[in-house]
Amino acid sequence: MKAFTQHLTFNTKETIEFVNVTEMIEKIVSESKVKEGLCLVSAMHITASVFINDEEEGLKNDFKKWLEEFAPSGKKYLHNLTGEDNAHAHLKRTIMGREVVLAITAGRLDFGPWEQVFYGEFDGRRPKKVLVKILGE
Amino acid sequence: MKAFTQHLTFNTKETIEFVNVTEMIEKIVSESKVKEGLCLVSAMHITASVFINDEEEGLKNDFKKWLEEFAPSGKKYLHNLTGEDNAHAHLKRTIMGREVVLAITAGRLDFGPWEQVFYGEFDGRRPKKVLVKILGE
Amino acid sequence: MKAFTQHLTFNTKETIEFVNVTEMIEKIVSESKVKEGLCLVSAMHITASVFINDEEEGLKNDFKKWLEEFAPSGKKYLHNLTGEDNAHAHLKRTIMGREVVLAITAGRLDFGPWEQVFYGEFDGRRPKKVLVKILGE
Repeated sequence: MKAFTQHLTFNTKETIEFVNVTEMIEKIVSESKVKEGLCLVSAMHITASVFINDEEEGLKNDFKKWLEEFAPSGKKYLHNLTGEDNAHAHLKRTIMGREVVLAITAGRLDFGPWEQVFYGEFDGRRPKKVLVKILGE
Repeated sequence: MKAFTQHLTFNTKETIEFVNVTEMIEKIVSESKVKEGLCLVSAMHITASVFINDEEEGLKNDFKKWLEEFAPSGKKYLHNLTGEDNAHAHLKRTIMGREVVLAITAGRLDFGPWEQVFYGEFDGRRPKKVLVKILGE
Repeated sequence: MKAFTQHLTFNTKETIEFVNVTEMIEKIVSESKVKEGLCLVSAMHITASVFINDEEEGLKNDFKKWLEEFAPSGKKYLHNLTGEDNAHAHLKRTIMGREVVLAITAGRLDFGPWEQVFYGEFDGRRPKKVLVKILGE
């Protein structure tokens, strides 16, 4: 059994931003030399997500608008009484998810035709980490 | 360490449909001969889900109605300017989730009393795949 | 390869309650003696969640209020025609998620600075189980 670990750091320009990390993950899978296994990709911060969806600009904007409707940044939250202003970002990340678990088959991500992995930032403009952990053989 | 991979194909009659796949997954776990391990079940398409909930007809309809409220199919989405009409399906799948990770203990799914695995289709009537990847011993 | 399994039982005082289980999971990881691996923590009941967020009282109350807005307990649901009154709890758990997959690196949970694991109960006051399954070496 092999285990392979990498920590990536992101520092987005926008407060809310989706970064396509598919190629980075593919590269890490290749470096791991794991042929059959599972690959966890998870946000290490609780106002960020890792999720799988479509690399299509319109849809990415639909997601941002939709999340703002369900967790408005301007609403009053108890969390923000602590001096924070990011309660909405905790809620948005919850809808989008913390992590994805990917299959590695024959040394590659075993993906459907449109699956792309994104880092979703909801309270950005500071360095934040993503964990990639591969287990297999 | 053993790895076992299967790809299932679904072609639902309805655009939005939940298919109980628990027995299929149990059969694959049994075929894998893995006694202790983890089993990833994930939708390979980004307008479909794999999730765990209850085999109860009323609740399944509650879910469909609830998802339609939060991601209405008739709303205007930027994604649909590309010629697609399935932006709502990408949002619905996001709420329901892409994947589940199941435990295998003593050769069987280590499940609670009501856990049932569903394939959730939100833009159906064409063939779509689900991945089952088992890692263990 | 090592596999390590534990089932925890929770019986919350409140119908809706979040229990911080981070220390329990850390203890199980330590007992497993797995140095490199993956750790699944999942709710075995379909009206409960396991999720990762912040140990901050205000935010926990924001979450509860927010979930009640999107899945009101007093609304009419088809599921409740079966004699149940917990349809809302199935929906709330869906937003918060069934499971988390954690990385174990150098014998410890490989966590970001604020990551805390919670058991989320949405239909409590009776015993319910959580599964912890560790795979690694």
